[in-house]
Amino acid sequence: MRNIKLIVEYDGTGYSGWQRQKNALTIQEVLEGALSKVTGEDVSVTGAGRTDSGVHARGQVANFFTNCTIPPDRFSFALNSVLPLDIRIKHSEEVPDDFHARYSAVGKRYKYSMIVHPHGTAIGRYYYHHIRHKLDIESMAEAAASIKGTHDFAAFQSSGGSVKSTVRTIYDAQFQWSDPYLYFIVEGNGFLYNMVRILVGTFIEIGTGRKDVMTIQQALDSGDRNLAGFTAPAQGLCLEEVHYDFFLDTVGDVY
Amino acid sequence: MRNIKLIVEYDGTGYSGWQRQKNALTIQEVLEGALSKVTGEDVSVTGAGRTDSGVHARGQVANFFTNCTIPPDRFSFALNSVLPLDIRIKHSEEVPDDFHARYSAVGKRYKYSMIVHPHGTAIGRYYYHHIRHKLDIESMAEAAASIKGTHDFAAFQSSGGSVKSTVRTIYDAQFQWSDPYLYFIVEGNGFLYNMVRILVGTFIEIGTGRKDVMTIQQALDSGDRNLAGFTAPAQGLCLEEVHYDFFLDTVGDVY
Repeated sequence: MRNIKLIVEYDGTGYSGWQRQKNALTIQEVLEGALSKVTGEDVSVTGAGRTDSGVHARGQVANFFTNCTIPPDRFSFALNSVLPLDIRIKHSEEVPDDFHARYSAVGKRYKYSMIVHPHGTAIGRYYYHHIRHKLDIESMAEAAASIKGTHDFAAFQSSGGSVKSTVRTIYDAQFQWSDPYLYFIVEGNGFLYNMVRILVGTFIEIGTGRKDVMTIQQALDSGDRNLAGFTAPAQGLCLEEVHYDFFLDTVGDVY
Repeated sequence: MRNIKLIVEYDGTGYSGWQRQKNALTIQEVLEGALSKVTGEDVSVTGAGRTDSGVHARGQVANFFTNCTIPPDRFSFALNSVLPLDIRIKHSEEVPDDFHARYSAVGKRYKYSMIVHPHGTAIGRYYYHHIRHKLDIESMAEAAASIKGTHDFAAFQSSGGSVKSTVRTIYDAQFQWSDPYLYFIVEGNGFLYNMVRILVGTFIEIGTGRKDVMTIQQALDSGDRNLAGFTAPAQGLCLEEVHYDFFLDTVGDVY
């Protein structure tokens, strides 16, 4: 059996997230269906991140085992010929047997996109969270900087997660402002359930003056979900990249 | 009666272009429907550019006359509350009676967006023309530069146009490459039917080596549509901005 790694881009608008569910259509199910068409086998796919309903990905990573003799780099072409246009395989390659899309990952980068404008946007409206009021972006940037490093993020998770530890390390967290678009980019060794969206919701409440910059530190210290902000909508979130090696990573992001 | 100017953004994916048609849904029809709801009048809207089916706009301009007493800058809010989310009014203001969205325009800027990648893109797939093969972007940029100035663009129009003169002045024409995205940005005093898309189609054929850079000059000189390239698909095209005054224009683009 060969172990094949895929880099997957998807528009999550039409799907109930990554992970296979009984009563809803998910990316995993569609991808496994495409793989069974291409390989003639009953293939099970492992994804690096279980993105939620409506969340997008430019760099989701998945792997699967197969006996199919298609050259590894041709799986992308074969799969794209049977996948819907809102799911694209950007890259495929053979990897060692012990590569596991989820457990081998050492870091992930997410981007959360907002448009700050009274009237929002028609073009690309499925990829931005629309914010009508002006924001204090300086305070938001200060708040973002304060989550860098290793912290217990218990206050920044939704119930329903099943992790043992809520400690995570954030390598980078920053806002980019390109009027009227605002982006939050965060890289870390892992993220709790809804963590990025709750962080963004908290930053937005800081930007509108409903919360103080110090809220972040208080929430980190107390682990109290009630101190953190609302869960920002799914459509703004995109899994940009998954990292597997600090030193050999070829994509150019430096920790 | 007051004359109201609108700046309109739309995702053209679901519409048969700007101009009202008997058997198809168009932006003009939907906008006029929204205006009649908001004003209680039977309102007719004039657009600056008749964008084709599937073409987008970030800065279409339209005007209409009304007796409705809504403050001019509130028309945007009122209209957005009844318009579908793929049409947004970005701005509304009262203008002098002699302002005509189409005839008063002195310039327009279009952007044509491409993704040059074997597998295309899932996110934003309705806004890019997908090109699978590598392009000689230097030659394309050279070809683009050669259309600047005043020329007879007869070779670069589809049949069905109804203009007297096919002479147009191009103020700027350039490619921007941000791997894997390629953008063609063009500003001119006016454009013939399908002119931007035929220019882009010709540039792409130059980029793939099917045509020589000199093709542009030969087509301009001869007026022969057969020398020009294919009509690039509608989805990549976006009307970015319409200009009404060389000196008072506030948007910052300098001719």
